[in-house]
Amino acid sequence: MRPGTDALIDRALAEDAGLGDLTSEAIFAPDHSSRGQIVAKQELVICGLAVATRVFQRVDPGISVKANLADGAAARKGQVVLQLAGPTVALLTAERTALNFLQRLSGIATLSRQFAAAAARAGTGVRIADTRKTTPGWRALEKYAVRCGGCANHRLSLGEHVLIKDNHIAAAGSLGAAVRLARHAAPHTARIEVEVTTLQQVRESLIAGAEVILLDNMTPARIARAVQLIDARALVEVSGEVRLDNLADYALPGVDVISVGALTHSAPAVDLSMRLTPARGQR
Amino acid sequence: MRPGTDALIDRALAEDAGLGDLTSEAIFAPDHSSRGQIVAKQELVICGLAVATRVFQRVDPGISVKANLADGAAARKGQVVLQLAGPTVALLTAERTALNFLQRLSGIATLSRQFAAAAARAGTGVRIADTRKTTPGWRALEKYAVRCGGCANHRLSLGEHVLIKDNHIAAAGSLGAAVRLARHAAPHTARIEVEVTTLQQVRESLIAGAEVILLDNMTPARIARAVQLIDARALVEVSGEVRLDNLADYALPGVDVISVGALTHSAPAVDLSMRLTPARGQR
Amino acid sequence: MRPGTDALIDRALAEDAGLGDLTSEAIFAPDHSSRGQIVAKQELVICGLAVATRVFQRVDPGISVKANLADGAAARKGQVVLQLAGPTVALLTAERTALNFLQRLSGIATLSRQFAAAAARAGTGVRIADTRKTTPGWRALEKYAVRCGGCANHRLSLGEHVLIKDNHIAAAGSLGAAVRLARHAAPHTARIEVEVTTLQQVRESLIAGAEVILLDNMTPARIARAVQLIDARALVEVSGEVRLDNLADYALPGVDVISVGALTHSAPAVDLSMRLTPARGQR
Amino acid sequence: MRPGTDALIDRALAEDAGLGDLTSEAIFAPDHSSRGQIVAKQELVICGLAVATRVFQRVDPGISVKANLADGAAARKGQVVLQLAGPTVALLTAERTALNFLQRLSGIATLSRQFAAAAARAGTGVRIADTRKTTPGWRALEKYAVRCGGCANHRLSLGEHVLIKDNHIAAAGSLGAAVRLARHAAPHTARIEVEVTTLQQVRESLIAGAEVILLDNMTPARIARAVQLIDARALVEVSGEVRLDNLADYALPGVDVISVGALTHSAPAVDLSMRLTPARGQR
Amino acid sequence: MRPGTDALIDRALAEDAGLGDLTSEAIFAPDHSSRGQIVAKQELVICGLAVATRVFQRVDPGISVKANLADGAAARKGQVVLQLAGPTVALLTAERTALNFLQRLSGIATLSRQFAAAAARAGTGVRIADTRKTTPGWRALEKYAVRCGGCANHRLSLGEHVLIKDNHIAAAGSLGAAVRLARHAAPHTARIEVEVTTLQQVRESLIAGAEVILLDNMTPARIARAVQLIDARALVEVSGEVRLDNLADYALPGVDVISVGALTHSAPAVDLSMRLTPARGQR
Amino acid sequence: MRPGTDALIDRALAEDAGLGDLTSEAIFAPDHSSRGQIVAKQELVICGLAVATRVFQRVDPGISVKANLADGAAARKGQVVLQLAGPTVALLTAERTALNFLQRLSGIATLSRQFAAAAARAGTGVRIADTRKTTPGWRALEKYAVRCGGCANHRLSLGEHVLIKDNHIAAAGSLGAAVRLARHAAPHTARIEVEVTTLQQVRESLIAGAEVILLDNMTPARIARAVQLIDARALVEVSGEVRLDNLADYALPGVDVISVGALTHSAPAVDLSMRLTPARGQR
Repeated sequence: MRPGTDALIDRALAEDAGLGDLTSEAIFAPDHSSRGQIVAKQELVICGLAVATRVFQRVDPGISVKANLADGAAARKGQVVLQLAGPTVALLTAERTALNFLQRLSGIATLSRQFAAAAARAGTGVRIADTRKTTPGWRALEKYAVRCGGCANHRLSLGEHVLIKDNHIAAAGSLGAAVRLARHAAPHTARIEVEVTTLQQVRESLIAGAEVILLDNMTPARIARAVQLIDARALVEVSGEVRLDNLADYALPGVDVISVGALTHSAPAVDLSMRLTPARGQR
Repeated sequence: MRPGTDALIDRALAEDAGLGDLTSEAIFAPDHSSRGQIVAKQELVICGLAVATRVFQRVDPGISVKANLADGAAARKGQVVLQLAGPTVALLTAERTALNFLQRLSGIATLSRQFAAAAARAGTGVRIADTRKTTPGWRALEKYAVRCGGCANHRLSLGEHVLIKDNHIAAAGSLGAAVRLARHAAPHTARIEVEVTTLQQVRESLIAGAEVILLDNMTPARIARAVQLIDARALVEVSGEVRLDNLADYALPGVDVISVGALTHSAPAVDLSMRLTPARGQR
Repeated sequence: MRPGTDALIDRALAEDAGLGDLTSEAIFAPDHSSRGQIVAKQELVICGLAVATRVFQRVDPGISVKANLADGAAARKGQVVLQLAGPTVALLTAERTALNFLQRLSGIATLSRQFAAAAARAGTGVRIADTRKTTPGWRALEKYAVRCGGCANHRLSLGEHVLIKDNHIAAAGSLGAAVRLARHAAPHTARIEVEVTTLQQVRESLIAGAEVILLDNMTPARIARAVQLIDARALVEVSGEVRLDNLADYALPGVDVISVGALTHSAPAVDLSMRLTPARGQR
Repeated sequence: MRPGTDALIDRALAEDAGLGDLTSEAIFAPDHSSRGQIVAKQELVICGLAVATRVFQRVDPGISVKANLADGAAARKGQVVLQLAGPTVALLTAERTALNFLQRLSGIATLSRQFAAAAARAGTGVRIADTRKTTPGWRALEKYAVRCGGCANHRLSLGEHVLIKDNHIAAAGSLGAAVRLARHAAPHTARIEVEVTTLQQVRESLIAGAEVILLDNMTPARIARAVQLIDARALVEVSGEVRLDNLADYALPGVDVISVGALTHSAPAVDLSMRLTPARGQR
Repeated sequence: MRPGTDALIDRALAEDAGLGDLTSEAIFAPDHSSRGQIVAKQELVICGLAVATRVFQRVDPGISVKANLADGAAARKGQVVLQLAGPTVALLTAERTALNFLQRLSGIATLSRQFAAAAARAGTGVRIADTRKTTPGWRALEKYAVRCGGCANHRLSLGEHVLIKDNHIAAAGSLGAAVRLARHAAPHTARIEVEVTTLQQVRESLIAGAEVILLDNMTPARIARAVQLIDARALVEVSGEVRLDNLADYALPGVDVISVGALTHSAPAVDLSMRLTPARGQR
Repeated sequence: MRPGTDALIDRALAEDAGLGDLTSEAIFAPDHSSRGQIVAKQELVICGLAVATRVFQRVDPGISVKANLADGAAARKGQVVLQLAGPTVALLTAERTALNFLQRLSGIATLSRQFAAAAARAGTGVRIADTRKTTPGWRALEKYAVRCGGCANHRLSLGEHVLIKDNHIAAAGSLGAAVRLARHAAPHTARIEVEVTTLQQVRESLIAGAEVILLDNMTPARIARAVQLIDARALVEVSGEVRLDNLADYALPGVDVISVGALTHSAPAVDLSMRLTPARGQR
C-alpha cells in the first residue's frame, strides 16, 4: 500500500463510522464474531486488496484477512476475493468503507484492462496512458489501479515532468524558447513534451528537440500526417475523445501512447459485496 | 463549503503540486498575471464552486474568484461558470485540482438531476435517494452534490440512523427483537428502517413498528404487493438495479423512496476546462 | 474504539509527552520494566478502557494491557480496572494521558448512571438524553460515555437530524412552513423535531406533523398541559434546568425524553490512579 | 490564539457540522444574513474569545466578529461578550461549537478566579497552580484559561521540568540519587521538584538540593511542620484534596503554591448563548 | 510557497510556541506593537521568504510583511531582507521559527550558489544536481532552495523516475533486462538512468538504451574513459565524493551532471537575525 | 520514539515514496525478499535507530528489524548498526527515508559528542547545551540527538522557561521589572534567565534575583570579570561564536553552560548506507 494512504483511510472511516455503527452495536454482543467473504458480483479486475485489508485492521487489528488473489488478477462473478474473520461489529463497521475502496479501484482496473486489450488488438504496440484527471486525494491509488489494469501512467504530478501547452508557448515567445526554458529547469531524468494542435507546431517541436509530442484533438488523418513528419524522432502521444469503440481509429502505426482521462475520471464502480456468517457456535 | 473539506483540498494540492508546477515556473515570470475562465464544455449541473474557489485561494490568496452561477444551476455548453484573475503560475498550479473537483461533483449533480427529472415524470411523488456507496473521503461533498442535483440523501453515516439487515435479524433472534434493540439504542430523532426481501418480512416489520421498510431487489410486481400490505403504515423504500431507463417500472404509487448507488459511485465526470488569457499588458 | 479517536490520542500524547518524560528518562534504565494497575479511587462507572489501552500502546506497542471490566461496568473504590506490564519509562510517559481520558469519560458515565437511576425511579419510562453541548473534539467519545452510563443520545450532529427553533420559524414564515421545508430536506430516516415554548406552538406542531416536540424551559404544570394536548401524537421531549434533585418533577407520565446538557459539559472527573511496581527482579 | 488550536477547531467543526446544518440549510436562503450576540447567562470570567472568533471565521471568513471584552474580564449576567454579523446559515452552523469552546474555557477561568480570590483572602501570598490533569487535546487552552482566571501554571508537560515521585526514588536507590540523575538530565533552566509524603523525605530533599518540595496529601498540621523544617530553603508546594471551602486551612504562611487538579478537570461549564436577529430588511 | 508547506509550518510553530511565548506574554501588553527587520548577518543567498512570511501570518494575520528581495538574490552582510510590523508578542512568538526556516533554506541556496559558480568556472556546461538525501519532511523546500542557488534538481522522488542500481540488475538477471522492465513500467515522459561502476557496465547500458548513465565513485581518469565510450549517446552523470575543492577534477568535458548530496544534507546554516523596535509612540 | 514522530515519518515517506518506488516495483517480484544491513561508512555516534525502525515498519509491518547498538553508542567505520529482513520492494522503498533520518540525527549526535569531549578536556565541569535553532518540525528529535551525543538541552520551547532579552527589558522599563513580571508569570518550576551584554546588566540581574545569567557575545576576558561578579549567586551561561577550536577559551572556571547553535543547525550529515542481499534461495 502506498505510504500516505492511511490518512485517506482514516478520513473515510471517520466519515462513515466516526460515531460507530448504531445498528450493529445495538444488536450484536461485543464478543460476537463472524467470518466474512468479499465476493465479486460481476466479472472484474480486482484492485485495492491491501487497502481493504488495512481498512478492516484500522477498525480492529484483531480482524484476520486473507486475500485469495493479487491486485490485477481477474475475478469471475461469484468469486471470493478476500476472506475475513473477527468481531462482528468491527466487520460490519468496516464493510462499506472497504467495499467503497474496492469498487472504485477495481472499476478503474477493469476499465483499464478493457483499454489495454483494445490496444493489444490494434497490434501496433501502442500503450494506453492515464492523465492527471484523477479524483482529488486519490492520485497515487488511481494511478496504481491503472497499472493493475495493464495501462501505463502519464506524469504523476506537475512537479517532475514537463508538458508545454499553448499558454507556455505564448509566454515564452516561441515554442523553441519554451522548450529551452523547460529543458533548463527540468531534472535531467525528464523528457520534454509539447502539446501541439497543428502540423506547423509539430515541425517546430522537432526543431526544438522535444522528446514527446502530444497531438491534441487531431483527426486520425491528421495524426497520420504528423506521424510521418515526426518519423520516430520523438515519441508520439495522442489525446482527445478516444473511447473503447473508436480506439482502433487512433491506434495508428507510429502512435506510441494514447492518453485517456476516462480511465480515472469516469470508470463506473464494479459490484462487490460482503457475505457474513457467524463464527462456529454463534447465532 | 462543508467544514472538513480543507483537509481534502490540501491533500489534493499536495499530490498534484507539492513539488510545484515545473513547466509553468520555468516559463512564466513570477509577476506574470492572467485572467482565467472555467467553462462548461457540455450541458451540465454545476456543483463545487466554493470548493474550486478555495482550491485557487489555497494556492494563492491573491487570486480573485467570481462565480457566475450558484451550485445546482444548469450551465449550457460554453458557459463560463467561474472567473479568475491572479498570478499565472498560481492559476496553472491550481487548475487541474480545481477542475478535478468540479468535474466529479458536477457529474454527480448532473446525473442526480436526470434521476430527479425521471422521478418527476413518474408523477407519484417518489424521491430518489443516494446511498453510502460514496468515494472514501468524499462523503459530505458527494451527498451535497446529490442534493444540488435535486435528489435526496439517505442516512449519511452508520452512526445516526438504523438500518436493520439480515445479519442483524439473525443475531437478534427475530426481526421484532432486532427492532426493539435498535429502537432502544437509537436517538429518538431517528426512524427505524428494516431491509426485507420477502412479504413475510414485510408483515413482521409492520408488527414490529418499523417506520421505513426497504424492499430490496424485488420485482415491480412484488413491490406492488408489498405496498398494498404496508398500506401507508410505514414509508416504502425500494432498492436494487434501478436505472434511468427502468425507473418508471419501480416508481409505483405508494413507493416513497428509491435509492440509487450509482448517483455517487458511477456518475461519469462532466467536461470543464480553464481558458487563460494574459492580463492586459502582458504577453 | 471509534475511528477518529487516534488523532485525538496522538494530539494528547504530543502535548504531554512530545518531548519525552524528562524525569523518568533520567532515572530509569531503558530496559527497566514494571507492572502497573489502574485503580478506581472512588465508586464509579468505568468508561474509556479501549482508549486508555490505545494510549499505552501508541507510546509503546510492547506494553501489554488487560482490562478487568468492560466499559459501563461499576467499579468499587480500590478496584483494579486495567492491568499493565511493559517498559517503565513508557508506562510513566503514557500514565497521565491515559488517566485523563479515563477520568473524564468515566466521570460522564458515572453522572449518566445517576441520571438513569433517577429516571428509573420515576417509573414513567422516560429516557434521559444528552445534547450537543460536548467538549469540542470529543463528540463521539462523550456520546459513547453517556450510553455507557445508561442514558440515550440525542442527535449526534447538525447534519442528520432536524431541530426547528425560533429563528427557523421566523425565517420560514410559520411553524408549518418550517416543518415542510425541513421534511423536504431531511433524510427519510429522520424524524422532525420542533422546539416550542408555548401551548399554541404545541398545537401548530401537531398540525404540521412534527414527530418530536421539545418543550423548552416550561414549568412542570405547563408540561403536563402540553402532554395532554399532544396526546401521544408526537414524542415529548423536555429540556431546561433539569437536575438530579428536581428530575422527578419533570418526569411526568407522557414525557418521553428529558435532555440534560450537564451530562457532558459539567460532569466532574472521577478519581483514578496508576500504581506501579517493578517487574520481578528489578528494583 | 495558541499555534496548534486550529487543528482542534477543525476537528470540532467537522464532528458537529461536517455534514452541514440540515435544518438551517433547509430553511434559510443562502444570502440571508443576521446579526448575532453571544451573551453571558450568568456572572462569569470570559475566556476563549479568540478561539470563538476563529470558529466563526473558519466556517465563513465573511462573518465579522467584535469582542466587547478581553479574555480574563468579568462579565455580568446578560452582558454581550461577542458581536457577530454575517450569513445566517454560517452563524448557526458555528454557534454550538463556538459556545462549547467558550463555556468550557470560561468555566475554568471562572473557577480559577474563585480560587485566586480565596488565596488572596488567605493573605499569605500563596499562588494556586493547575496540574497536568487536563482534557486530552486541550492542554494549551486549559492552561491559558487558568492564567486568565488569575491562577498559575504548574509544569506544562512531562518534557521540560522534573517532578520526582516514589517510583523514581525507588529506582534510583535513594532520593538523593534521584535528584542527582534528574539534575544532570534537566535543562539548567529547570528547577528540580520532589514529591514527598514524610518529614524524613523533606529532610532528604533539602540535603539533595531540591528546589521545590511538594507535600502530597499531608494534613495542615504536618504541612506546618514541614514548612518549619524547610525554612525557606526550597519552595513549598501543597497538593491533595484542597477545595474552595478548605483552602484557608492549607494556605499556611510559608506555603508558596497549592496545586489543584479540579481547576481543569472538574470546572463546571458556564452558561452562554447566542441571540440571533435578522439583518435589517430581512425576515 | 509549495502546497503542503503549511503542515510543516504548523508543526514547527506548535513545537516552539504551542504553549505561547512565556516571557513575552509576561512583559508586553497585548496591544504593544513593533516593527521588525530580518537582517543577514553574513553574505548569503536568500531563500524561504514566502515561508517566513507565512510563519508570521500564521501566528497573527495582522502582521504585515514586506520582502526587500526575491528568493535566490544575494544579500550583503547587514542587509535587511524582510520588514515586519505588528503586535510585539506575535512577532517574538514567530521569530525563531521564521529564522530557523530561513537559515536552513538560505544555507542550502548559498552552498548551491558556490557549487554553481564552481561549475561555471569549469566552463564545460556541467550542471550540479542535488540528490534525494534531503531532510525528511523538507523535500520540496530543499529542492526549491537548490534551484534558488542555481543548481538543478535530480529526480524528486522514487515514484516518477527510474534509477537502476546493482540490486535491480542482479534481480533482473542482466542490465539489459532491468532496463527493459523499467522502460515498460515508467511513464513515457521519464528517461531511464543506470548507475554503473565499471566500463563494462557502461557498454551494457548503451546497448540497453539507457538515456542517462551515472558513473558512481569513479576516478577522473575512469570517468574520461567512460565519456569517450558513451560518446554523447547518453547523458553522463557523475557522483561520489565531489566537493567544492575538487569539483574541477570531475567537471570534465562530456560530463553533463554532477550530483552532490551535501547540497542538502550538509549545508551549514547561514546567520540571520531579527531586529525589533517599538512602533512609534511605544516604549 | 517521541510521540509525535509518526507524523513526520509519514510526511517523509509520502514525499519520497507516495507514488511508490517505480524502479523497484518494475523489477522485483512482489514476493522477492532480502536481508539488509545499515552500515556506518565512517566513525560516528549513532542516533535515530527507533525512528529508522519505524520507517521500515510503516512501509511494511512485515519487515523485521534488529538494532546492534543503542542510540548514543559509537560505531566504527564498517560496523553494521541495523539488520533488516523482509520484502525487497519495501526495503528499497524505505531505504532512503530511513537513512535520511539516521544521517541527520547521528550527525548531530556525533558533533555533540565532539563538543562534550572538548568540554570534558577543559576540566571545569562546564556543560554544552543546544539552542532553539533547530530544524522546523524536528525539535524533539534534534534535542534528543544532542542528549545522545552527551550534551545538554537548553529550554525546549518558548512556553515553559523564561529568557529575558533586550526588548523585554526595554518594554518593562528596567531589568528588575522584567524579572518581576516574568517571575510572576512563570511556573514555579522554572528558573528565570536574563541575557546580558554588559557588566552593569550582570549587576542588575543579580539584584533582580535572576537564577541564570547568559553572557552573550562577550570576550573571554569579559566573561572572567562577569564570573567574578556573579560569584556563584547565579548560573553562568555563555553564548556567542563558540566552536570546537576555541571552546577552551570560553570554558573558564565558573562558567556553567556554553550554548552552541551549531549542534543542531550546522551538524554535517554522517555517512551510512544500506547493503542488500537476496534472501536465501532468491536471485
